[in-house]
Amino acid sequence: MKNILIIGCGLIGSSLVRAIVKKKISKNIFVYEKSKKNILKIKKLNLQCILISDFKNVVPKIDLIIFCTPMSQYEKIILEINKYLITKIIITDVGSSKESSLALIKKKLKKGISWTSSHPIAGSEVSGPEFGDSNLFLGKWCILIKEKNSNKKHLFFLKKFWKRIGSRVITMNSKKHDTIFSITSHLPHLIAYNLVKSAQDFEKIKKYDLIKFSAGGLRDFSRIAASNEIMWRDIFFNNQSNISKVIDLFIKNLKSFKKDIELKDDKSLIKKLVETKKVRKKIIMLKQDINKPDFGRS
Amino acid sequence: MKNILIIGCGLIGSSLVRAIVKKKISKNIFVYEKSKKNILKIKKLNLQCILISDFKNVVPKIDLIIFCTPMSQYEKIILEINKYLITKIIITDVGSSKESSLALIKKKLKKGISWTSSHPIAGSEVSGPEFGDSNLFLGKWCILIKEKNSNKKHLFFLKKFWKRIGSRVITMNSKKHDTIFSITSHLPHLIAYNLVKSAQDFEKIKKYDLIKFSAGGLRDFSRIAASNEIMWRDIFFNNQSNISKVIDLFIKNLKSFKKDIELKDDKSLIKKLVETKKVRKKIIMLKQDINKPDFGRS
Repeated sequence: MKNILIIGCGLIGSSLVRAIVKKKISKNIFVYEKSKKNILKIKKLNLQCILISDFKNVVPKIDLIIFCTPMSQYEKIILEINKYLITKIIITDVGSSKESSLALIKKKLKKGISWTSSHPIAGSEVSGPEFGDSNLFLGKWCILIKEKNSNKKHLFFLKKFWKRIGSRVITMNSKKHDTIFSITSHLPHLIAYNLVKSAQDFEKIKKYDLIKFSAGGLRDFSRIAASNEIMWRDIFFNNQSNISKVIDLFIKNLKSFKKDIELKDDKSLIKKLVETKKVRKKIIMLKQDINKPDFGRS
Repeated sequence: MKNILIIGCGLIGSSLVRAIVKKKISKNIFVYEKSKKNILKIKKLNLQCILISDFKNVVPKIDLIIFCTPMSQYEKIILEINKYLITKIIITDVGSSKESSLALIKKKLKKGISWTSSHPIAGSEVSGPEFGDSNLFLGKWCILIKEKNSNKKHLFFLKKFWKRIGSRVITMNSKKHDTIFSITSHLPHLIAYNLVKSAQDFEKIKKYDLIKFSAGGLRDFSRIAASNEIMWRDIFFNNQSNISKVIDLFIKNLKSFKKDIELKDDKSLIKKLVETKKVRKKIIMLKQDINKPDFGRS
C-alpha cells in the first residue's frame, strides 16, 4: 500500500501509526488530527507520519482511510471529504458500536463509495497519542462488519490488514456486533461509572472519607470509570436500545440477589456465586486476560 | 510474644503465618485448619507452623488467637474453645463485616473474655494457603474495631501487631465500618457477580458465544466474581441491611443513567462521566492502586 490516512490520532490512531510503521504496511501515513494538544504531542513523540490540516490534496491519493475519532465526529468529516472520494478508496473505522453509525454513514457518504467497518477490541482507560503502542492489537479480536451488501474486496483487504497488525479477525453483522458488545463491553463500562457515581453520592450523604478504603473492590471499577467520556457517551447513545435491554436484565438479576440476601437463601445465593466463578476460568482459558491473581498488580 | 494460634489457614491465615515468621513476631505459630486439602498443602509448602487438630492442650498457653475462617464458622469454634479461654488471652478475627458477627460473638463467647476485631483490607480472588504472601498486608489498611466497651490494652496490642505486619492501622466502630465497606467492597463484589451472571444469562438467551469477547470490559468483573463463595455469602448475609440500602442507591443511579441515554441527554450524561473520572486519580494519589494503564497487565 502506498498511502494510509488516519483521521483522529488518540490512543487507537497512534497505536495504528506505530503498528503500520513497524510492519511496514504503507509507504506513507497521513494523519489528520484536530486537537492542537494532540498535534503537539505527535510532533514531540516523533511519530512517523505526515500531519495534514486539509483533506483536499491528500484524500485523492489515499488507498485506505481509517476513522479513529469519536463516532460523533464522523458526520462532519464525511461531509468534508465526500467531494474528494473516488470509488476504489477503502474506508473503515474503529468505532465500538455499529448499527446506528452505519445507518448515518449510509445516509451521509457519497453514493458509490464503500465503508467497511472494523472494531478492534483493544484500548484502555487512558487516551491520547502518548499512550499508543504498536502491540496494542496483538492477539486481540478485530471484528469486521459484514452485511449483505458489503464490498467483498474491501472486506478481504481489511482482513489482511488487521491480521498484519496482529489481530485475530472475525466477521459478523452490525446487529449481532451491537448485541454482543452491549453485554461484554458497554454495560460493564456503564456499571463501573454507576458504581463510582454511587460511591461518590454515598460519600456526600454519609460525610465519610471512604475512597481511601477502595482497595476492597471499588478501585477495579474506578479504572474503567476513568475512560474517555466523549467516546463512551457516543457508544451509549449509539447503542441505546441494546443497552437499555441489558440494563433491565442487570436490574432484574440484582433484585434477585437482593432477595436472596434478605431472605438468607443460602442455596440460591451459593448456586449463583459458584456459577459465575466459572466464567473467570473460561476467560483465562480463552486468553482474554492474564492468569495472575489481582491482575498481577501487587 | 510466645504463642500465636491461627484458626483457618487459607489465603489470609497463611499470609499471616508467613508475615509473623518473617518479622519474628512470635516464638511459635500454631495453626488449626479443618480442611484436609489445605492441611496437605500447608505440609507441602513447609509453612513454619505447628498444625494442631485439637484445642485442648494448646489454647491455654496461647497469647493471641486470630480467626481467619469464613465468619459462618466462628460460632462453632467459639463453642469448642470457650472452656479453654483465660481472661488475658487476646482474640481477634479478620472478617469483612463486623456488626452482626460481633453481636453473635458477644452472645456466644465466654463471659469475661475480650474479642477485639480486625479487618485487614487485603486479599484477592484466589483462595488457599498456596497463594499466601508475607507481603500481603504491606502498606494496606487494617481497620481495628473500637467500641465504647473495647479492651484498650488489647486494642493497643493489636495496633502494634498489625503495624509490625506492615499494615496502616485505623480504628472505627463496627457500625461505621460496615457502612463504609458496604459501598467500597461489598457492593462492588455483588455487582461483579451480578454482571457476570447477567452475561451468562444473556449468552443462554441469545445463544451467542460471547465470553471470548470479554476483553472489552467484562473480564475485569470476572476477576472479582471469582472470589470465594463461602466468604462472600457470609459477608452478604452479615451486612444485609447496609448492602440492601446501597443496592437501592445503585439501582436509582442506574435508572438515571438509563434515562440520560434514552433521552440522549448529553449534558447530564457527560457531567456524570466527567465526575466519576476524578475518583481514579484520587485512588492513585492515595496509593490504593497502581498507576499503570490497564493495571499494567498487558
